[in-house]
This record gives sequence, C-alpha cells and structure tokens, in this order.
Amino acid sequence: MNVIQLPKKVRIVEVGPRDGLQNERAKIPTKIKTAFVNKLIEAGLTDIEVSSFVHPKAIPQLADATELFEALVQPGGVCFSALVPNERGLDRALAAGINRIAVFTAASDKFTQQNINMSIEESLATFSPLIAQAVDRGITVRAYLSTCFVCPFEGEIPTDRVACLTRKLLEMGADEVAISDTIGAASPKDILATVGEVLDHAPVEKIALHLHDTYGTALANVFAGMQLGIQTFDASAGGLGGCPFAPGAAGNLATEDLIYFLHRMGVSVDVDMDLVLDAADIIAKSLDRPPRSKQWLRQRGCIIHPMGASNHE
Amino acid sequence: MNVIQLPKKVRIVEVGPRDGLQNERAKIPTKIKTAFVNKLIEAGLTDIEVSSFVHPKAIPQLADATELFEALVQPGGVCFSALVPNERGLDRALAAGINRIAVFTAASDKFTQQNINMSIEESLATFSPLIAQAVDRGITVRAYLSTCFVCPFEGEIPTDRVACLTRKLLEMGADEVAISDTIGAASPKDILATVGEVLDHAPVEKIALHLHDTYGTALANVFAGMQLGIQTFDASAGGLGGCPFAPGAAGNLATEDLIYFLHRMGVSVDVDMDLVLDAADIIAKSLDRPPRSKQWLRQRGCIIHPMGASNHE
Repeated sequence: MNVIQLPKKVRIVEVGPRDGLQNERAKIPTKIKTAFVNKLIEAGLTDIEVSSFVHPKAIPQLADATELFEALVQPGGVCFSALVPNERGLDRALAAGINRIAVFTAASDKFTQQNINMSIEESLATFSPLIAQAVDRGITVRAYLSTCFVCPFEGEIPTDRVACLTRKLLEMGADEVAISDTIGAASPKDILATVGEVLDHAPVEKIALHLHDTYGTALANVFAGMQLGIQTFDASAGGLGGCPFAPGAAGNLATEDLIYFLHRMGVSVDVDMDLVLDAADIIAKSLDRPPRSKQWLRQRGCIIHPMGASNHE
Repeated sequence: MNVIQLPKKVRIVEVGPRDGLQNERAKIPTKIKTAFVNKLIEAGLTDIEVSSFVHPKAIPQLADATELFEALVQPGGVCFSALVPNERGLDRALAAGINRIAVFTAASDKFTQQNINMSIEESLATFSPLIAQAVDRGITVRAYLSTCFVCPFEGEIPTDRVACLTRKLLEMGADEVAISDTIGAASPKDILATVGEVLDHAPVEKIALHLHDTYGTALANVFAGMQLGIQTFDASAGGLGGCPFAPGAAGNLATEDLIYFLHRMGVSVDVDMDLVLDAADIIAKSLDRPPRSKQWLRQRGCIIHPMGASNHE
C-alpha cells in the first residue's frame, strides 16, 4: 500500500474579509464586517486578513479599513493582517495598530500591469523598501505571489520564475510567500511541479498556498500541497471572492470545505464548523446571495430530493 | 522534488443517464434521454450506463429502459450498459441487445437493507448465479460496491470488508468493481487506505472509482486514486444525481469537471468538453434546473462580477 506522509497540523489563513469582500460587487457596511470578523474569531480562526490599506478609490469595498480596525479587538492568540501597497498604506496600518501586513505582486508581467500598473520588477523595487521599513518597525510581512500557475493574460507560467520570485520576496524580508492560483486553474500536477520547485529554494514553513476553486480543483491542490509538506492554506468563509482582473476566477476555497477536508484527512483543526457557517451567513444576508460552499449547500441549502426510488450507488 | 507516477490514460464511465437520472425527482421523457445519450456519444464518451432494468415501480424514472434502448443505436467503439437486479432484469437486458450489465451491492448491511432489502450476504447469494448466467451468455458484468467509506446508517466502513467483498465479486465473474463513495464523504486519506487495501487483493485494471461530490472532495479523490494507479472513474454529465437513501449525498462527480482535471493533469482524454456541456444542457432544460458543475458555471453561468477594483491575489 502507498504510504504518503502528510502534515499533522495545518494553519488556515482566513482571507474572506479582505480577498473575499474586495471582489464582491456590493459594499458591505462596517458594522456587518465587524460582526463577520468577530464570528470568525469566535469560530477559532487565528489568522485573519481583515482589510486593505489601499487608496479608497482603488477598492471602495475596503475603504473603511481604519474604521473596521477601530471597531475590532484583536484577542490574544489571534493575528490580524491587512494588505498594504505603499508607504501611505503602511502608515495607516501602523496607526491602526496592525502587526502584520501583506504585500502583493505576481508571476506575470501582464497581470501586475493590469492589477497594480507596474511590471514585476517595478513592483519588487517598490516593495523591497516597504518590506524593510515594516520589518524595522517590528511588523511581519506576508507576500502574495499571484498567477503562479496560469495567468489569464499570459497563459502558462514557468515554474522557475515562481521559484525565483519567491526567493527574492523572502530575501527582502517577507516571512511567508502565498503561492497563489489566482484564477483557480491549477491541478495537482501544477502544484507538484511549481511548488515542488519553489521548495528547492525556500523552507516549507515559509510557503502558503492560496487557492481559488474555479474548476473544483482546490481541495485536490491542497492534497498535493500537503504531500509536499505545505502546512498553511488560505481560505475564505462561504467561498467569498473572485477576481475581476482574472476572467473566470471564482471565489476562494471555502473555509468550511477546507475544514471538512482536513478533519477527514486526520488533521486536527481547532475551528468550529457551525460558527464558520454562521459567519458566512452574515455576509450572505448582506449580499443577498447564498454562499458557494459545498458545506453550506449541505447544511443550509436543499440539495436532496427524497423519493421512493431504490438501487443507488 | 516529489515525483509521483500517474496513469497516462484514463477511462471515463458516464453514469448520468442511469445513476444521475434515477436520483432526480422528475421523470424525463424518453425522447429527451435519447437526445442526451446521443449527445454523450457525440462528445466522445465510450462507456455509457444508459438505464436500469429494475422493476418500473422501484425506479419510475427509468421505467422506460426498453424503449430507450430501442431508440438508441450503439456505435462501434461505444459500450452501453444497464443495471440489472435479477433474472427478469437480465432477460430484459438480453432482449434489448445489451452486452454489458451492472449489479449492485454495498459494504454496509444497513445500506443494502434500505436499498435492496437484503443483507450483503443475501445480495451476494442473489448476484452470484446472476453474474454466472450473464457471463455464460457472453455478457460482461460490472459490480457496484456502495458505501465503501462511510455509510449514512452505519458510519465508518472497515477497509478489509471492502477488500474482501471486492475479491468475492471478482471471483463471481465481475470484470470490474466500482468502489463507490455513495455519500461523497471520503477524503484522499480514505481512498489511499481502502482502495490501497483493495489493490492488495485485486488487479488495478479491474477497479473503478465511483465518486460523488457532496463535500467537494471528488477530484482530490480522483487524484488519490490515480496515485494508486486507478484508471477508471465514473462521472455524470452536469453532475446529475444524488441518493435519496443516503441523506446529504449530492450528485456524481461532473464529467466536465473530471475532463478539465484530467486534461490539466496531462492525461489525454478524447472527449469534447463543449458537447458534454451541451448534453448537460439537454437535461437541465428538461429539469428546469442548472447543472451543478464548476465548468458549467464557468462557461454558461455568471460567476464573475466585473468591477473597477484592483489588487487581487
């Protein structure tokens, strides 16, 4: 029998309040976001990306970042983070009392152009001093590397480019790189190839997987990542999100589907499924649209058609 | 880097017309089913489970099996099959000119009781002569083994029971056993453990995986199966199906999602994605309900919310 070593513990980074909500058309009131984040904390999630300190006009959905952080209390054992694109954003994050930020670039020049109006090299030149400044001030930095597998504008991304950029981001002082499947196109083969190569150049504990579930491959990709020893996975309650600059991208892997999967894989996860679904409900009510997760459909939706038939496999 | 050997070719057994439709509340007209099966053939699917020769009262949705086979022409290179529960069913299948049948039992006594009103042993005693008779008449036999991982009534199923039953079904003359995750609860860990043990007692080319996607784990389970060398996977166009006797079971793994996955995994699959979606559309129109697959949502639904925002991972 095939014996595959899998991690015994996994860390979930909840990105719903930031990556999820920034991609929803509707602007959610700060009060609702506060209730959402508080419910995620109550559920036991310990790493929560709460918002983004970008220019309010760039992402109006997250323009209330300062107000949201003012309304929240970060309990012991919980790490809040926020996306920060520049020094102005870093100042706002510091003022909000954040001790973890995230920066973002991509493995595709065409994507960074569309997304942040810079080439990859320009983005690194921008983020290098920003990361240094954050680290100087005692703030830890996660770096997102988008479109690591397929870019909607450029197509297939070479594995060595992802490995090289990951190493650079770590050398600049990021303590974690989130290898991101922005349009959710990757399969386990891509994970094994690209992340496998990344791990030739970076310690496994510094690599996270950020997966979207456009094609239903997200959990298969988690499994592939686990086989490589990856222990940090991003997810979003209710499967919120998408990506307007990435045609066809669906939401993030749903936190509740990841929890079921990990539980069934024998990985201990100290998160309460029901409370994650309650958190998803808060946003779903505000968006007036049901969450996309399998777990929500199973527990809250109606997918069973009871009949008198027999003989089922 | 981790190197995992995966099969280069995979066989898809399309079970939508049978397992899919028997679990839909609505009765689909024979004319629509004919168009559905013909579209599946046009798409390039070569193994199609068309219907079931059970008592019409047991599954009214498939009561038109004889008429459906009369309306269909089986092209060279395509293998039609039908579910057969007893001698009467076998006679009907023979009259319809079928050269492949399927029988069904489960790895849970409580499930077989609910499903076919027999214990596992009674079902084997029933099917043993039936399989022998079919083989005598030149008909090949697939055997479904339901609830191989989790039973909705009995809970966790011991791996050795599945291995033992699989061996028995092969010894009786079945040329293939479909190890079935009836409620879609399995994770790759379950696949590796149970199917791994099955393969200690059975040749890999005689084992198929029949997966449902209740918890979003189906493709992860395909990946686990492929790592064990499994080369035959069941799927259902549009993700049709469910199981009324298995609370919480969603539809089969969608054929179109499996095709995307295999393609991306580097496995050559000679099936036309667009035509599979067209097939799904035929049934969706008749059921007046959109298909459940990710691929359908992506290509026919609307999951993108274009906006002016930026900064996306």
